Amino acid sequence: MSCNFGEKVKITIFGQSHSEAIGVVIDGLPAGKKIDMEKVFAFMSRRAPGRNKFSTPRQEKDKPEILSGLVDGITCGAPLCAVIRNEDTRSKDYENLKKVPRPAHADFTAFFKHNGSNDIRGGGNFSGRMTAPLCFAGAVCMQLLEEKGIKIGAHIEKIAGVYDLRYDSANVDFEDIDKKEFSVIDDNAGEKMRERIEEARANGDSVGGVIECAITGLPVGIGEPMFDGMENVISHAIFAVPAVKGIEFGLGFDVADLKGSENNDSFSFCDGKFATDTNNHGGILGGISSSMPVIFRVAIKPTPSIAKEQKSVNLITHEEENLVIKGRHDPCIVPRAVPCIEAAAAVALMNLI
Amino acid sequence: MSCNFGEKVKITIFGQSHSEAIGVVIDGLPAGKKIDMEKVFAFMSRRAPGRNKFSTPRQEKDKPEILSGLVDGITCGAPLCAVIRNEDTRSKDYENLKKVPRPAHADFTAFFKHNGSNDIRGGGNFSGRMTAPLCFAGAVCMQLLEEKGIKIGAHIEKIAGVYDLRYDSANVDFEDIDKKEFSVIDDNAGEKMRERIEEARANGDSVGGVIECAITGLPVGIGEPMFDGMENVISHAIFAVPAVKGIEFGLGFDVADLKGSENNDSFSFCDGKFATDTNNHGGILGGISSSMPVIFRVAIKPTPSIAKEQKSVNLITHEEENLVIKGRHDPCIVPRAVPCIEAAAAVALMNLI
Amino acid sequence: MSCNFGEKVKITIFGQSHSEAIGVVIDGLPAGKKIDMEKVFAFMSRRAPGRNKFSTPRQEKDKPEILSGLVDGITCGAPLCAVIRNEDTRSKDYENLKKVPRPAHADFTAFFKHNGSNDIRGGGNFSGRMTAPLCFAGAVCMQLLEEKGIKIGAHIEKIAGVYDLRYDSANVDFEDIDKKEFSVIDDNAGEKMRERIEEARANGDSVGGVIECAITGLPVGIGEPMFDGMENVISHAIFAVPAVKGIEFGLGFDVADLKGSENNDSFSFCDGKFATDTNNHGGILGGISSSMPVIFRVAIKPTPSIAKEQKSVNLITHEEENLVIKGRHDPCIVPRAVPCIEAAAAVALMNLI
Amino acid sequence: MSCNFGEKVKITIFGQSHSEAIGVVIDGLPAGKKIDMEKVFAFMSRRAPGRNKFSTPRQEKDKPEILSGLVDGITCGAPLCAVIRNEDTRSKDYENLKKVPRPAHADFTAFFKHNGSNDIRGGGNFSGRMTAPLCFAGAVCMQLLEEKGIKIGAHIEKIAGVYDLRYDSANVDFEDIDKKEFSVIDDNAGEKMRERIEEARANGDSVGGVIECAITGLPVGIGEPMFDGMENVISHAIFAVPAVKGIEFGLGFDVADLKGSENNDSFSFCDGKFATDTNNHGGILGGISSSMPVIFRVAIKPTPSIAKEQKSVNLITHEEENLVIKGRHDPCIVPRAVPCIEAAAAVALMNLI
Repeated sequence: MSCNFGEKVKITIFGQSHSEAIGVVIDGLPAGKKIDMEKVFAFMSRRAPGRNKFSTPRQEKDKPEILSGLVDGITCGAPLCAVIRNEDTRSKDYENLKKVPRPAHADFTAFFKHNGSNDIRGGGNFSGRMTAPLCFAGAVCMQLLEEKGIKIGAHIEKIAGVYDLRYDSANVDFEDIDKKEFSVIDDNAGEKMRERIEEARANGDSVGGVIECAITGLPVGIGEPMFDGMENVISHAIFAVPAVKGIEFGLGFDVADLKGSENNDSFSFCDGKFATDTNNHGGILGGISSSMPVIFRVAIKPTPSIAKEQKSVNLITHEEENLVIKGRHDPCIVPRAVPCIEAAAAVALMNLI
Repeated sequence: MSCNFGEKVKITIFGQSHSEAIGVVIDGLPAGKKIDMEKVFAFMSRRAPGRNKFSTPRQEKDKPEILSGLVDGITCGAPLCAVIRNEDTRSKDYENLKKVPRPAHADFTAFFKHNGSNDIRGGGNFSGRMTAPLCFAGAVCMQLLEEKGIKIGAHIEKIAGVYDLRYDSANVDFEDIDKKEFSVIDDNAGEKMRERIEEARANGDSVGGVIECAITGLPVGIGEPMFDGMENVISHAIFAVPAVKGIEFGLGFDVADLKGSENNDSFSFCDGKFATDTNNHGGILGGISSSMPVIFRVAIKPTPSIAKEQKSVNLITHEEENLVIKGRHDPCIVPRAVPCIEAAAAVALMNLI
Repeated sequence: MSCNFGEKVKITIFGQSHSEAIGVVIDGLPAGKKIDMEKVFAFMSRRAPGRNKFSTPRQEKDKPEILSGLVDGITCGAPLCAVIRNEDTRSKDYENLKKVPRPAHADFTAFFKHNGSNDIRGGGNFSGRMTAPLCFAGAVCMQLLEEKGIKIGAHIEKIAGVYDLRYDSANVDFEDIDKKEFSVIDDNAGEKMRERIEEARANGDSVGGVIECAITGLPVGIGEPMFDGMENVISHAIFAVPAVKGIEFGLGFDVADLKGSENNDSFSFCDGKFATDTNNHGGILGGISSSMPVIFRVAIKPTPSIAKEQKSVNLITHEEENLVIKGRHDPCIVPRAVPCIEAAAAVALMNLI
Repeated sequence: MSCNFGEKVKITIFGQSHSEAIGVVIDGLPAGKKIDMEKVFAFMSRRAPGRNKFSTPRQEKDKPEILSGLVDGITCGAPLCAVIRNEDTRSKDYENLKKVPRPAHADFTAFFKHNGSNDIRGGGNFSGRMTAPLCFAGAVCMQLLEEKGIKIGAHIEKIAGVYDLRYDSANVDFEDIDKKEFSVIDDNAGEKMRERIEEARANGDSVGGVIECAITGLPVGIGEPMFDGMENVISHAIFAVPAVKGIEFGLGFDVADLKGSENNDSFSFCDGKFATDTNNHGGILGGISSSMPVIFRVAIKPTPSIAKEQKSVNLITHEEENLVIKGRHDPCIVPRAVPCIEAAAAVALMNLI
């Protein structure tokens, strides 16, 4: 099964890049909750293309229509379904791809999985466009989480070798970052990142990066040991975002080079609550939230669609072919992936709490 | 729910470090399959403590008893249950920990999650000991996977800053590595790693590392886009192994620094089959296996239990206390975690195929 | 969770009687299958209201729009989503019901479950109208089942005390019955049933009945013992159809009065295949299909909405009130429930095979 | 998957009639709850064989050993595992059954499902013996439900045509019935039932019956519409008890003969709470509890194992054979099934609340 996530709040995403519509069903929302749709749309616009020169010029209205689940803007206990019509699609761009798969795309694997019946247009249901309904679901979940004092924020930690500052709960307010056109803490770093992206575009190439996400306001005790820990569930959801190649919690892969005495966070009690003096554990111990901020980082690969000619192979004739991808594509999807990571985290959290 | 994994082959793990027994139920195995129990026990012995001087001297027989699911060593379609008795437990070692949580352990989070009713003895069901039944399940699954030509192997890629060679399907045969007392490709690197471990032990400290795992023989087309891709399911299972803080597939976090033209693997056709010229994608595109080896790496934190005195806080009095952990502990759990990672991968794969 | 069913082929139903639309997402369909939409619509029309004088005159076009999952009418491996717009809704009919629940309806329980935020209009997501997307899903599944030689048919066994003949694989062809305006084997019995329905309507009352369903062409070996047997899964799905109050397999409740020697079906081998001489077991032994037709019967209560004045209570003032239900309602929903039962069985079967 | 049930409190049952042991893992129990094991054993003894002359003389100690999940008799948040050793098994009784299936047993379907690898001894995992761990789980769940004021009771409503009184909350206290050797309200009816059972035994035959179950103390609002209603989940669990052929809620199949005006339960408010004047709906409206007692009835077929010679067929030679079942068997399993139905209901409820 590909499109379902969650047991408590169940998300079902459907659609293909060039089908009539894409959408999401959210089941299990509590009844009687006012959903601020303007806020949902604002969140989704952070992901939408055409926002600035760093993203694909494909114009989408992307305004979801609510088919069910709300009465006068308030949840009624029935599943909430939202659909987004697909418009401005140029399906002919993709005709030749059916036989000659694009490197680093799912064309190849989807072809064999579905015996050639996969929808190749715009990447079908493998398209990054499928993150639009994910963002809708995430935005709804975030409103419910905020009611409990839980906030989720993310920023670009790195693009093409240029680093932003790391998240620090003392110095970073994600509400400020969300308003920026480019989601970084340090705008100077952001400026350099943009240069690298522009450079890649000029060269018909693309660049990747890392997104850092923080979840604050979680009480102690969320999650389970073994298979239903915070890391299990969050990583399960995050890998639904295309182009993610890795995830790490707390110090992540850096722990490999530390001693226990360096990595262990000592406990303390101050201001009437328990805490750890450092947060190397990233807010999770034994799969369970410690009440410290949950911190994780996600590796995003460079956009596979590049303008440069690439070598591929014809799936029918078995002969090598040089491939030039037309279409319109982001030279870097990291900026648009930021809200997607937040959304996936929100959906995961709703199933943990 | 903490102890269940999978929909096709469902694993249910139970027990606590110092309860009567620990064990696992495996449901959904095909009937009529001969399970080579000697091979299962051999696999489990790679995880077992007391194997060499680098692991805890706690002696466990750890020989599972099969309660159900086999008739004359052959699966009969009923769930397979195996239990391992807990012996040689010194529960008194843990008495004071109930109130003063060990840094980087789950004592703190488990205490609050279960209002103090958690089983603190030996870490309860948060103990690394729970990976013994996981290894049993993994070993059974691996035999069924091998029938289909699928092999899973892992090695220590790094401990305390010392690197082993990276996996290369041309040069590495995991059957050779499995026989080694220390699971590395390059024995010289292994020697240096052991020195660092010994050093850490001498200092009352511990060290972490990275494990690299490879899955070969997978056909193209396994996995799904979105929520049930190879990465989603494998990462979900891998984080069940305590001390894992990160996972990356293919080039993983290194993709962040690459250009699309560098990262994209071009397709080719040779020796009668499709392949990619490089394997930066780690055998997975769009969540689906490409038939190239699936490669992933896992970050393991340094053993939290160290002999050095540490600062903690009394959960009842709220006062800081210095904590000295007695008990017996590995200065590095990476070597013993190698089969656990393989086992978790095997269990995940059984649910993907 | 209310709207999801299945693990292999997952059905997600959304909508309320008077929301913008109702619909269904079907995930897990094999790719490359031609779906005959005319046949799907024909199936759905058997459930649709306004077909004859025995059903509510509310006019609905009820023609589903396919949003995703098909390319040129062929499944592409992505989830199939179909939506049906809600038109011709007269929401004002329901205004007073919010406070004064209709007897035998879900108004009362939904009010308390959702603290008064439930969508009362037309019964919200408790409406029989939600069986339209169920029928869509069932019709799609039935086409895939028919490819494997599996057929599902149902007929009205009883309405208001009038009995149809019982199903007998030798004498009944469901294709004939499906074409009838009234789904009975014996048209004389059907005529009497209609008289009773008409009588009930004239009296402002309603009547109930029993539907018998048969599944043929199942191979031996489908289903599991304990919790995932044929009976467990079919009954789970069937109770999704509103107004169902009971289900029985084979001889059902009549077995209570039989001796073992009467009830046990003896085995035989003829025409190259195993069979039982009788089919008291209804095609299921130990939760698993025996290759004999699966037979089950479902009790349908009389339509709760009747024109007669009824006693209820005001949920706010706690005072008794006499209630007259306006709206438009079937005096007997049994005829329209026939395809719903088939559809629920089809959805269940897709998850068993 | 055969052996798992539930999402909130997950039950995993394992074992075969003649394997080393049978048992159950219960995951998701709240921590800190005292489980009265004497009470659990007392409950299980109601199901145990050898209790009186109406059940099989096979002697089992059937005392479960707790392997995990409890510390000093109190739940610790880890999965609770209990095992029961299989003793006094005479496997040779079953040798010839592998080839010649017993009528109305699962021998036939299990043989084909598992290609002859099924465990035929004592019925393997299709044995009624598997209800012992189900009763263990149910007894644990019932203690937690009772804390919330929810009680589950059942009685024999009918055996071999002899009826007990129907349940009436005003006149029946299940605590009294549980103490009886024969679970009926009216002891005179019970006496006649026993005569019929004895008669069947004398004739080498068996008889079936009906069990009625009542759940009291449920608050309004438990359950969901569509696929996760009370009826869906309870029926799913109940069909795990072997020999069940039907289930009905409230008036059940009798509603088919009623008019809406007769079947609809009018609402009222008295003694400070809402109620219905009658309880034809059996405590469930729209899948959701109404706070009235939940009432359901279950049809149990006559024991398939009878002493009389029966006709079967040899699965290898395809020739008809006359079969005489040796072994030791109940002429009526209805009395022993009473606690099993209660247990299945308890497990279902724990997943609804």
